[in-house]
Amino acid sequence: MPAPIDFYFDFSSPYGYLASEQIDALAAKHRRGVAWRPILLGVVFQQTGSQPLLNIPLKGGYARHDLARSARLLGLPFQLPSSFPFLSVAACRAYYWLHDQDPAGAVALAKALYREAFGKGGDIDSGEAVLRIAESAGVGGAGGAGGAGEMAAALNDPAVKQRLRDEVSQAISKGVFGSPLFVVDGEPFWGHDRLDQVDLWLQRGGW
Amino acid sequence: MPAPIDFYFDFSSPYGYLASEQIDALAAKHRRGVAWRPILLGVVFQQTGSQPLLNIPLKGGYARHDLARSARLLGLPFQLPSSFPFLSVAACRAYYWLHDQDPAGAVALAKALYREAFGKGGDIDSGEAVLRIAESAGVGGAGGAGGAGEMAAALNDPAVKQRLRDEVSQAISKGVFGSPLFVVDGEPFWGHDRLDQVDLWLQRGGW
Repeated sequence: MPAPIDFYFDFSSPYGYLASEQIDALAAKHRRGVAWRPILLGVVFQQTGSQPLLNIPLKGGYARHDLARSARLLGLPFQLPSSFPFLSVAACRAYYWLHDQDPAGAVALAKALYREAFGKGGDIDSGEAVLRIAESAGVGGAGGAGGAGEMAAALNDPAVKQRLRDEVSQAISKGVFGSPLFVVDGEPFWGHDRLDQVDLWLQRGGW
Repeated sequence: MPAPIDFYFDFSSPYGYLASEQIDALAAKHRRGVAWRPILLGVVFQQTGSQPLLNIPLKGGYARHDLARSARLLGLPFQLPSSFPFLSVAACRAYYWLHDQDPAGAVALAKALYREAFGKGGDIDSGEAVLRIAESAGVGGAGGAGGAGEMAAALNDPAVKQRLRDEVSQAISKGVFGSPLFVVDGEPFWGHDRLDQVDLWLQRGGW
């Protein structure tokens, strides 16, 4: 069984949202899985001297136009949240906590969070919002033994906080610096617009 | 006759080089011309707080890898010049001076300059280098009345200098902030990796 495609993303990344709607189908076409890896890019942005794309003069205005146009091309709803960029710490913690008991549910949660934020323009930065979206998506234990309270507790669990810090550190140590960023058999591809090359790389086994 | 595609680029932009090898054929497929518009991005970079991509920590290393990989995919030679990024004032002046008397020759010069810089890794930052490349490409009057001396004089002609400043100002006033950047019937597309959307836009007449 070949290795899954690593899909690194920040929940606050609109191009990550576009990628999140395509990556599973692309991988399945090549009989690959996808390892969804949400991270926090703030730390990396300090190193690269970057700022969130949409805040940059000139580039920001273009990016808003480009995002809406790319979403139309893909047939996806698109709307920026009123508060943007936003903190995605709670979203990431919920993801990793859930991942350890229900990997498929964690991916469903990630997709639901992204759709809320960039499909509907909703806010997903608070723990309350994340819990509400998890419940709507039917993941995270609302019907299980611990109920939704277990996920609520996990958001402030020191072990879960450390788990997220470790995931971010590992990603940075592997050279991840942007979102979305894909790694296919050791080969990094940065940007939603590199999905074409990811597809070709998988098809040809590199070039 | 529909309007040509505006192709804005900086001679110091390696992704501009990749685009320069594809844009004419892409336009011809849709029965369009291309208006080649070399500019200097230094002024814009001050506004956007950007720095040349390859100098940015983490991103720079990735970009070198991505450029080589994209060139291989396209079957194009690729090598970074020893001095990079470089000043392209002389290249731009030669282009616009030549453009006013021989538009096709100016495009041939632009292609030859790009191939020297990024296909062979040669230096094109000096007036001497630009004149030499023009002569090799058989453009710029080496066989004409004034000979190559006329282009040499043009590189320091106040009118030519002003012409370049005007072109850069006009580009910036139209919102050009990166290289390559294409404008198709008023619609801007930034980046070599947006050529796919340029192609689709021309095919569908927008979406």
